[in-house]
Amino acid sequence: MNLTLKRAVCAGLLAAATLSPLAARADSNHLFQFATIDALLAGAYEGDLTVDALSKKGDFGLGTFNRVDGEMIVLDGVFYKARGDGKVVKALPDEKTPFATVTYFPKGGEVITVPAGANLHDLEVLVESKITNPNVFYAIKVEGTFKAMKTRAIYPQDKPYKPLSEVSKTQSVFEFQDTTGTLVAFRSPGFSKGFNVPGYHWHYLSKDATQGGHVLSLSVEKGGAQLASVWDVDIQLSKDDTFAKADQTKDRSKELKEVESDRR
Amino acid sequence: MNLTLKRAVCAGLLAAATLSPLAARADSNHLFQFATIDALLAGAYEGDLTVDALSKKGDFGLGTFNRVDGEMIVLDGVFYKARGDGKVVKALPDEKTPFATVTYFPKGGEVITVPAGANLHDLEVLVESKITNPNVFYAIKVEGTFKAMKTRAIYPQDKPYKPLSEVSKTQSVFEFQDTTGTLVAFRSPGFSKGFNVPGYHWHYLSKDATQGGHVLSLSVEKGGAQLASVWDVDIQLSKDDTFAKADQTKDRSKELKEVESDRR
Repeated sequence: MNLTLKRAVCAGLLAAATLSPLAARADSNHLFQFATIDALLAGAYEGDLTVDALSKKGDFGLGTFNRVDGEMIVLDGVFYKARGDGKVVKALPDEKTPFATVTYFPKGGEVITVPAGANLHDLEVLVESKITNPNVFYAIKVEGTFKAMKTRAIYPQDKPYKPLSEVSKTQSVFEFQDTTGTLVAFRSPGFSKGFNVPGYHWHYLSKDATQGGHVLSLSVEKGGAQLASVWDVDIQLSKDDTFAKADQTKDRSKELKEVESDRR
Repeated sequence: MNLTLKRAVCAGLLAAATLSPLAARADSNHLFQFATIDALLAGAYEGDLTVDALSKKGDFGLGTFNRVDGEMIVLDGVFYKARGDGKVVKALPDEKTPFATVTYFPKGGEVITVPAGANLHDLEVLVESKITNPNVFYAIKVEGTFKAMKTRAIYPQDKPYKPLSEVSKTQSVFEFQDTTGTLVAFRSPGFSKGFNVPGYHWHYLSKDATQGGHVLSLSVEKGGAQLASVWDVDIQLSKDDTFAKADQTKDRSKELKEVESDRR
């Protein structure tokens, strides 16, 4: 058997092996991250990773698209874009991202009941109480009905790109009532401060995929939360020029807080 | 053939396959990092990754061992430990690390001449001038003869562990003259501040493997530097309790500077 053939045979055998539940669980323990939050904050809005390539790295996650054209929500392997005009569309395979985080969300985990009336802070306190290790990553999925859901999305930007803290001042804000859908979120540890969002980062998609975005506030009617801990993080850096030129030496935690939270 | 056997056979075949130049080149673009510098600074001195497991992730790199027992230098696939008593020994396969960074250093790259008389700062300025992207990682190998080389190493610590900035006050310092060997180093981008050492991190091993440690200062007699850019970083978090309990939310950049540099 020559080497090429050996590789092909093994690739087949190992691919078959990954169908086992054990292998699926191993995959779900990896988080794939493209580029860094510090580059995005600095205005590096053009990445070289396609949605198609990203879809090989996970079926659950969040991010944005080149030119910060909308909020990315990845659920059950489908890539959605919540746009600045309020529309939610499926992303095309050749669209690119300057920042995204995905994982394979494991099936069949424990569901934690979220009490009616809980706001975003209450939800974070509840999740925090279930977390056993503050220094690893958690993927968080909350399926529920929400009395209120306030999201934001950003219109695509033009060059020269301004920092995200400037751009987010012009963000579109959407307020939905009595909406049923899924929160797609991550809790990232403190040491991720340069490349991801330490603490909680929530995106939302309604069940009918017509409402969504980066979550600013919410009120739960009823909900169930699932958590998945992640111990392995694979960061792929962008080869785009905007990434290379972004000043990633500053402490951008204040900018990040401004950009992520509800300022109204 | 059952699944376990198939896997074993394939592991063997694929191991043989990785001897091809193509596979080696693909590997050299990955940096594997175990745990985080912030955990180490906080006193999380017990990792659950063995030298044997780490040796599957790279043949070039640096780190430390559990209980901060000496400085790790990985060169040509051999794992050395520069101890607090000044001796350099080969690490045992079952020894564990609380923090390490390794990659496969590519062969045959351009060699940059380092001028005689260059000190550590001059060397960093020279390397910086050759770097095309400040926001990716670089592995740096400098082979040379040094008029002077000042290193440090730390004796193994006992519980309860003190923060590294306390422990490093008791470090052993070694001054070598006219020593020939290799600097093993990384340049890490600013966004790595929570998990790695932003800027330059230099370890040294003499050619006869009797002198080494974390470099505090040096003077070059003659030297040649090779750089390898790295765009993919795989972080594996420690399952040890000391990692889970470490406060990794603080900005530890001042502590890091104290620990890494020559304070005398």
